[in-house]
Amino acid sequence: MSWLPAPSTGPRVILGCTGSVATIKVPELARKLQERGASVVIVPTERACHFLKCQAKVEMASSRGPVRGGLVSFIKPERKATDNGELRGSDSDDQNSSSDHCSQCGRRTPIRGRKQTDDTLKSLYPDLNFVLDSDEWAVWNGRGDPILHIQLRDWAQVMVIAPLDANTMAKLAQGLCDNLLTCIVRAWDSVRPLIFCPAMNTHMYKHPLTMRHTGILKELGYIEVCVMTKRLACGDVGAGAMAELDNIVNAVMQELPGAHRVSHGPF
Amino acid sequence: MSWLPAPSTGPRVILGCTGSVATIKVPELARKLQERGASVVIVPTERACHFLKCQAKVEMASSRGPVRGGLVSFIKPERKATDNGELRGSDSDDQNSSSDHCSQCGRRTPIRGRKQTDDTLKSLYPDLNFVLDSDEWAVWNGRGDPILHIQLRDWAQVMVIAPLDANTMAKLAQGLCDNLLTCIVRAWDSVRPLIFCPAMNTHMYKHPLTMRHTGILKELGYIEVCVMTKRLACGDVGAGAMAELDNIVNAVMQELPGAHRVSHGPF
Amino acid sequence: MSWLPAPSTGPRVILGCTGSVATIKVPELARKLQERGASVVIVPTERACHFLKCQAKVEMASSRGPVRGGLVSFIKPERKATDNGELRGSDSDDQNSSSDHCSQCGRRTPIRGRKQTDDTLKSLYPDLNFVLDSDEWAVWNGRGDPILHIQLRDWAQVMVIAPLDANTMAKLAQGLCDNLLTCIVRAWDSVRPLIFCPAMNTHMYKHPLTMRHTGILKELGYIEVCVMTKRLACGDVGAGAMAELDNIVNAVMQELPGAHRVSHGPF
Ligand SMILES: Cc1cc2nc3c(=O)[nH]c(=O)nc-3n(C[C@H](O)[C@H](O)[C@H](O)COP(=O)(O)O)c2cc1C
Ligand SMILES: Cc1cc2nc3c(=O)[nH]c(=O)nc-3n(C[C@H](O)[C@H](O)[C@H](O)COP(=O)(O)O)c2cc1C
Ligand SMILES: Cc1cc2nc3c(=O)[nH]c(=O)nc-3n(C[C@H](O)[C@H](O)[C@H](O)COP(=O)(O)O)c2cc1C
Repeated sequence: MSWLPAPSTGPRVILGCTGSVATIKVPELARKLQERGASVVIVPTERACHFLKCQAKVEMASSRGPVRGGLVSFIKPERKATDNGELRGSDSDDQNSSSDHCSQCGRRTPIRGRKQTDDTLKSLYPDLNFVLDSDEWAVWNGRGDPILHIQLRDWAQVMVIAPLDANTMAKLAQGLCDNLLTCIVRAWDSVRPLIFCPAMNTHMYKHPLTMRHTGILKELGYIEVCVMTKRLACGDVGAGAMAELDNIVNAVMQELPGAHRVSHGPF
Repeated sequence: MSWLPAPSTGPRVILGCTGSVATIKVPELARKLQERGASVVIVPTERACHFLKCQAKVEMASSRGPVRGGLVSFIKPERKATDNGELRGSDSDDQNSSSDHCSQCGRRTPIRGRKQTDDTLKSLYPDLNFVLDSDEWAVWNGRGDPILHIQLRDWAQVMVIAPLDANTMAKLAQGLCDNLLTCIVRAWDSVRPLIFCPAMNTHMYKHPLTMRHTGILKELGYIEVCVMTKRLACGDVGAGAMAELDNIVNAVMQELPGAHRVSHGPF
Repeated sequence: MSWLPAPSTGPRVILGCTGSVATIKVPELARKLQERGASVVIVPTERACHFLKCQAKVEMASSRGPVRGGLVSFIKPERKATDNGELRGSDSDDQNSSSDHCSQCGRRTPIRGRKQTDDTLKSLYPDLNFVLDSDEWAVWNGRGDPILHIQLRDWAQVMVIAPLDANTMAKLAQGLCDNLLTCIVRAWDSVRPLIFCPAMNTHMYKHPLTMRHTGILKELGYIEVCVMTKRLACGDVGAGAMAELDNIVNAVMQELPGAHRVSHGPF
């Protein structure tokens, strides 16, 4: 059983998102990246899940529905080359991995031996890949079991956090890592690009600590896609809105020089 | 359905409280502020709720009981002037708002369409107004729904955090905002007064980071009402006890020059 | 009912542990300390409990089982001398304290009036003493009730945090204290030794903030037992592994000059 999308020639992207209203745009952002050929794994904080669930209802109510299936198929995990046998293989799961997803709609079906986690998001958005905090803890039950935040940081070529809210920004600037998203960042290296897209109420944005924190993140080598000034979800007008999705997609693609040459459709 | 008390000529006060034993004094503090004519909304952290519930039992056991009803009536929300219609009006609720509370005891009754949140505190202290973390998330279900931490910071004229424990102090000094109280502070501006009243065990208080954090909070323009030296709840003697309630009330009133001239009784 | 082991001539040690894989070694570490004559109270974070529970299954599967009973007996709390009577005595519990444990296996039996908390760990490891976050909140229900993080910091002669993960390290360096372990540290003084043993994935360890945080902890007077370089649980090779248990035991003993002269067996 793998938590990672099938290998592709396109870039492998972790899309982190947090408890900002702008998270309702994350499904669209993920699809835009997929349309550019990327394999995308979405890592939401617990608060972000609330916005993703609310947004699913909006998509459902609209005519097309959230399902754009067929974009993704899952394969068995890329095994890490180890000589000490500590990474326990779940062989029976691997043998069944071809039946793990419907090849038409990408919908995952429960497989033998798989730990039960919160699958609400996964069923609301069958064309997208989510990995949640609960997944990380459900899969580790003893020496040799996978450590998801390490597997994900090893797998990804680029990480983008959009939206990045004030709270997770403060946590990242100060090394706190109490969930999957922040653990991946804590284990990230400075060689590969990490892009962050702040989004917050304009009053939060004007707080002096915001500048201090974005400053620290940039010192760590992370790339900022700056906020816009406009009317925000709360009705206030000011700086703090997340950048346009296309700008974010471009920022991701720019960091992966080979990526814009990948022009094929769904893989 | 409004989360904000009726408008009055008195000052509009947010009273934040945290996981310190001194939170058992918060109901009394809120009433003292109400007696001075203030509209008070109490915003407790989850840990603070534990102390408020324990204290309710003490009040119940005493002869007078916790109910001093009739002080507060709720009205429909002050609508924010917006020209884009994003702030969704809950009109049906508003029409029912007059039946939302018993005019004698202030006890709220469930109203149609209202999201279910933890109402234990609200029923234990019917004369006081609480807004909880769960309220913030329960009321937001889609674009245009109210964002409580922004509504509250817009509504209030002054904010006082009493008691401020070591943990929330550290969070505020470092821009963390993972609950309603800390989100309001993160969105606060430096024009309106924010008063904080530390309270902690004397050993916690003597930790070198305490001074650093109160220093940062004062640099941000917040006003400290200093701790007292006395025998603390844990039996230790030393600095760390929350200031006397009357001193806190006076500090709040001082920051609102017009407030002490409001001499009418319960409104 | 006491949360503290019986007094002994040996050192009184708090062993904190956090959400690192290395927490599976904590039961063995605690027993090594007990074999050196120490009274040990284990204070795990919530995430640490996951690893302790997984490890119990491994011990159970092995022939000897986790029970090495008979090492520990509990007595009534050392009452703190107070003249204001605020520390409520639970006399009925004290009278029953002799029947609180089986003298053969150390297994605790429920006693009258005792608050119900999560006793899974306690029954999985009957020879070890755990105090959990839930205990701290379950025992405080009104003025005069014990405050466990203060009682524990008063009781202990030395504190050792092994393993210390990246997240709790960041919290300690920045004064955050949202659980029992971090509250004890926040109330610790610089006179008594506090030893910390980092353990993390090598990529987490190489993050520039790790060095900043260990630096702050050492400035606060805490003693570091440095990580080792080896193949980690995730398969990566590099610095970040927790020090050998015997080195940690020695570091604890060294900080307690009299301790190595205590040579008697189980007390
Ligand atoms: C299987 C697994 C192993 C982990 N091992 C470590 C580790 O060795 N060191 C570390 O710093 N974090 C590790 N983490 C991440 C922490 O568990 C995570 O930061 C957690 O929120 C820490 O919580 P705590 O500091 O409150 O215990 C691991 C996580 C998982 C799921
Ligand atoms: C309806 C609603 C909208 C919010 N929007 C934002 C936002 O745009 N930006 C932000 O920084 N915080 C926002 N917050 C506050 C965060 O959700 C809050 O700080 C939360 O604890 C963040 O958790 P996380 O960083 O773990 O995702 C919002 C909260 C609510 C209830
Ligand atoms: C009975 C009890 C009393 C406490 N009293 C205090 C206190 O007076 N001051 C303090 O800083 N922390 C105190 N704490 C610790 C805080 O409750 C703890 O740090 C908590 O996580 C704070 O959460 P909050 O800041 O989100 O409210 C106490 C804890 C307990 C169990």
